[in-house]
Amino acid sequence: MSALVGIIGACVLILVGMIMKGGSIGGIISPPAFIMVIGATLGVMMASSGLDTVPKMIKLCLGPGMKDPAERRAETIAILVEFAEKARREGLLALEADIERLDDPYLKKGVRLVVDGTEPELVQDILETELEQTEGRHRKNQEIFKNGAAFAPTIGILATVLSLVSVLQHLDQPDTLGPKISAAFLATFYGVMAANIFFYPMANHLKRHTESEVATKTLVIEGVLSIQSGDNPRVLADKLWSFVPPALRAPGEAAPAEPVGAGV
Amino acid sequence: MSALVGIIGACVLILVGMIMKGGSIGGIISPPAFIMVIGATLGVMMASSGLDTVPKMIKLCLGPGMKDPAERRAETIAILVEFAEKARREGLLALEADIERLDDPYLKKGVRLVVDGTEPELVQDILETELEQTEGRHRKNQEIFKNGAAFAPTIGILATVLSLVSVLQHLDQPDTLGPKISAAFLATFYGVMAANIFFYPMANHLKRHTESEVATKTLVIEGVLSIQSGDNPRVLADKLWSFVPPALRAPGEAAPAEPVGAGV
Amino acid sequence: MSALVGIIGACVLILVGMIMKGGSIGGIISPPAFIMVIGATLGVMMASSGLDTVPKMIKLCLGPGMKDPAERRAETIAILVEFAEKARREGLLALEADIERLDDPYLKKGVRLVVDGTEPELVQDILETELEQTEGRHRKNQEIFKNGAAFAPTIGILATVLSLVSVLQHLDQPDTLGPKISAAFLATFYGVMAANIFFYPMANHLKRHTESEVATKTLVIEGVLSIQSGDNPRVLADKLWSFVPPALRAPGEAAPAEPVGAGV
Amino acid sequence: MSALVGIIGACVLILVGMIMKGGSIGGIISPPAFIMVIGATLGVMMASSGLDTVPKMIKLCLGPGMKDPAERRAETIAILVEFAEKARREGLLALEADIERLDDPYLKKGVRLVVDGTEPELVQDILETELEQTEGRHRKNQEIFKNGAAFAPTIGILATVLSLVSVLQHLDQPDTLGPKISAAFLATFYGVMAANIFFYPMANHLKRHTESEVATKTLVIEGVLSIQSGDNPRVLADKLWSFVPPALRAPGEAAPAEPVGAGV
Amino acid sequence: MSALVGIIGACVLILVGMIMKGGSIGGIISPPAFIMVIGATLGVMMASSGLDTVPKMIKLCLGPGMKDPAERRAETIAILVEFAEKARREGLLALEADIERLDDPYLKKGVRLVVDGTEPELVQDILETELEQTEGRHRKNQEIFKNGAAFAPTIGILATVLSLVSVLQHLDQPDTLGPKISAAFLATFYGVMAANIFFYPMANHLKRHTESEVATKTLVIEGVLSIQSGDNPRVLADKLWSFVPPALRAPGEAAPAEPVGAGV
Repeated sequence: MSALVGIIGACVLILVGMIMKGGSIGGIISPPAFIMVIGATLGVMMASSGLDTVPKMIKLCLGPGMKDPAERRAETIAILVEFAEKARREGLLALEADIERLDDPYLKKGVRLVVDGTEPELVQDILETELEQTEGRHRKNQEIFKNGAAFAPTIGILATVLSLVSVLQHLDQPDTLGPKISAAFLATFYGVMAANIFFYPMANHLKRHTESEVATKTLVIEGVLSIQSGDNPRVLADKLWSFVPPALRAPGEAAPAEPVGAGV
Repeated sequence: MSALVGIIGACVLILVGMIMKGGSIGGIISPPAFIMVIGATLGVMMASSGLDTVPKMIKLCLGPGMKDPAERRAETIAILVEFAEKARREGLLALEADIERLDDPYLKKGVRLVVDGTEPELVQDILETELEQTEGRHRKNQEIFKNGAAFAPTIGILATVLSLVSVLQHLDQPDTLGPKISAAFLATFYGVMAANIFFYPMANHLKRHTESEVATKTLVIEGVLSIQSGDNPRVLADKLWSFVPPALRAPGEAAPAEPVGAGV
Repeated sequence: MSALVGIIGACVLILVGMIMKGGSIGGIISPPAFIMVIGATLGVMMASSGLDTVPKMIKLCLGPGMKDPAERRAETIAILVEFAEKARREGLLALEADIERLDDPYLKKGVRLVVDGTEPELVQDILETELEQTEGRHRKNQEIFKNGAAFAPTIGILATVLSLVSVLQHLDQPDTLGPKISAAFLATFYGVMAANIFFYPMANHLKRHTESEVATKTLVIEGVLSIQSGDNPRVLADKLWSFVPPALRAPGEAAPAEPVGAGV
Repeated sequence: MSALVGIIGACVLILVGMIMKGGSIGGIISPPAFIMVIGATLGVMMASSGLDTVPKMIKLCLGPGMKDPAERRAETIAILVEFAEKARREGLLALEADIERLDDPYLKKGVRLVVDGTEPELVQDILETELEQTEGRHRKNQEIFKNGAAFAPTIGILATVLSLVSVLQHLDQPDTLGPKISAAFLATFYGVMAANIFFYPMANHLKRHTESEVATKTLVIEGVLSIQSGDNPRVLADKLWSFVPPALRAPGEAAPAEPVGAGV
Repeated sequence: MSALVGIIGACVLILVGMIMKGGSIGGIISPPAFIMVIGATLGVMMASSGLDTVPKMIKLCLGPGMKDPAERRAETIAILVEFAEKARREGLLALEADIERLDDPYLKKGVRLVVDGTEPELVQDILETELEQTEGRHRKNQEIFKNGAAFAPTIGILATVLSLVSVLQHLDQPDTLGPKISAAFLATFYGVMAANIFFYPMANHLKRHTESEVATKTLVIEGVLSIQSGDNPRVLADKLWSFVPPALRAPGEAAPAEPVGAGV
């Protein structure tokens, strides 16, 4: 939601400002500039990240781009503490029945490994490898947008220089000079616009998804290993809640550990 | 205070210089440019950091932005050394009565964990996790302002290019050309101004708050663990004072460990 | 393939856009600008990376530049698991016969070290050193292109400034001014074009080759050491598959460990 | 010395070149531009680093800025080896008499801790914490100048854009246009000058002081711990001299460990 | 050689291109611009790196700048393996006679330490400290050139702005305007040229020397410690050759560990 609202809002405000200044939307449409800037940017993005860059980009925009990262830490802690209590009372095998009702496949995998009696080192190894792989995969997705943000403005300038070169070769028609130079600068506008209103914000937005994913998975690793080693559920809760910012803590949980007045 | 004084001072000096040069404040007010630059910058900041970016930003400006980071290391050391002495004389449980009179919730939490008889590894784990989480949360707050600082100037240039494009399409009215180009450059001015007079300095200001917070919390971790392991209070004082720059050391404490002349 | 398609596609689109705007290919050809920009860029690239920079660059373009990194993880896991089973059943020496049919020289080397009875620490040491050396060598190759990308635009600007300097010394021939300034800007165009349409995308493309190579070799190290220590083949498979993104996992392998809806 | 010579030399050469080209010193003096650029830069530097930024900056310029970092490694090694010999012959307590004649307070502190019979781990802890704190404090000092270097040019451009905006609103007085645009660019000149002739070189100069300080303190830590553990003074000398570049080694010390011809 | 050829080649090509375009070498000579840009750049480089920056820079250009890094890994391995064999057959003391015929002082030092019976930890400590010190010293040398590359273009722009300021104050002599603006831009040309044709390529060139030095010294550490611990010479050879890229391996050594076709 925030990506959609922010990006569309920024576009609308720029157009509104332009119209208030007397510009017209028709005046900023130039198919050749669009082909040069957006086309060539997509080309070098494909050269950088593979032939499936464009469908991947669209999938990312329609998938995580359309929703904000969910905050699942509080409920994950609740489940982990509940499982720790059950495992203490009835043994690890008692968790088998509960695996199926879990929504989060990562938590599911962790609990199943524990129930299957996998060695702790291997459980940790497998869960951490999976976390690193997820992070790496997300980082590559962000890189697609970062590449776009890096290439678009320079390709915009490239197209503008190219257009100016051809304008300057025909200085003998002074009355068409203004509109031609104007059209040349549209390419810079397209490039800077694509980078700053779309590519960079999207990369930042995806980064938030990653951070949220990593935060939850870190909790799961910590929790699953604690369950396996039979830690006291109360101690586990203490440990897990210290991963969560005070503002998100369940009522009754450890008081905020910062001067209230600071408000940072 | 320093953020307020510095930022307002910079604004005033720029306006004073402008007026000395014969400019007028009315001449730099352009609602369309303001909508384009500040509006779109806030839009992409929301796309980058979530829908609550603007209220968060205001809260940060009114909270830590209005005051300088407090130097609490000397008094924290005094408390920790006092507690270490009491714990040595009367046992860890004797500290229970003193917990309530502590102001710093982080120190409070640390001492309570020790009094409750939590294992040292877990105390360290919980306090360090909390420290890392605080740092991470602060870093995200700084990032909001850094994002603003990164986007504002390019969006200012974007708006200027867009305005110039429409100016250049109407070169046939030469007498309005100057003011129109002038108005186009106001967008660049707004963007560069927002980034360099507001966003960057605020990010730096918040960073100082974080550093101060981390410095104090590091002391607390070191001290609480020392109290728990029953270290000699004198040794603890020695260790803790080496975290504090000579200039801030209590009189009688370890002499400055640098050539006095160097003054670095 | 992706490098070829992306780079040529970008060039074509830029030319198409230019022609749509009324420019001509003849108008952007300037041998002196080409000599200045491309020649001097190659010169400083040689000063930076050695006299064999140009042949190396051509070799890289014709070699890995012409094909996309192969995804060999699934088949590598299959081989490693098969070897683990055989080694468990028939002993490590039984693998000797299979070494020759391996295509991947790194895997070959790893298995041979194991069959030869080399100590595990040394096997790990040798394979990791080789991996680091490969990474370092690839990084140097990428650096050649990154250097080109860093130098080309500034040398383009250099050549443009130099040309403008000589244009400005002869302002008395106003009718040749336009084409001369136009020709001066061609140097900037060449530099920015070389950097953004060729050097940067190629550096990114080579980086993907490296990542793919490292991913496969990491699997091999993990697998070979597991075979040597006689781990359970099923456990080995579990461990290795967690290095592979869910989408590439063999059917029947561990279900994706992410909320399906997230699609990140 | 080097900062003073280099910075004043650079200023003089720039003025000399300007006068050779026919410019006059009077022509580059503009109080409004000075107020805008230098004033606002100091303002945002205060917002970034605290209200005492300006006095701190002056103190740093007059203190370490006026002298070059002293090379104290050779004499420090001589003292440490001498102390190691004495401690071996007469015991650690015999060093007590020599503490007072030491100039370097850090070395003094280290030797006193050893003479006082502090545990080795704690000695190392205290000395390393003090080293880290010194480095951190120095880094903050460098940051003041780096902030100045980052803000000054953009604020210069800000002031120039602001001045151009007001110039462009009065295109109807063409005869005052040149001087007015000229005055507008003075702000850019001030900003770039402040950053490149003063702030950056000073930051680099302070960095050299830090490196020299850290190098000497590292020797002291290594040496004091060696003295405490009763190492052979000859072995200690060998170890300490390997921290010193061959060119600075005492005659008779380990020969240079590089091909003489390389001269790197 | 490569630095010399690359840098001179780049200069020649830029001049050739300029002459092809009708410029003259006389037209780009401006002593005032030279004094401003090169003089002030050297000044701030001295402020940054000390008063001996210029002689150091000249020494580096005439020393390592004139030759390419030598590839000494293959022969170093040969010597180390030979020594390992001799030490195994005849004991470590037998190496004493061979020390004198070694050219590389670092290898010499390492072998002497072993022959003298120094403890392994200390040998490693001394050799690694020496390696780190060499790297640090080289890094500082590279920094001299990187500083030059960072300062030169901005000081060029500074000088150009300063010249334009004085040109714009005398718009009443339009016929001298062109040549004066032209001369102003020469300063930018000098600065960008110095940075991109000299400083950056030299910094990159020195970096290659460092990498080559570090690669050889790493081999020596690994080898000397292996000799001291009496490792099997064959195993040592295996270990050391994995530090060398396949293309440089002695015939008969481990086959390349990469798909031959990849050619990366």
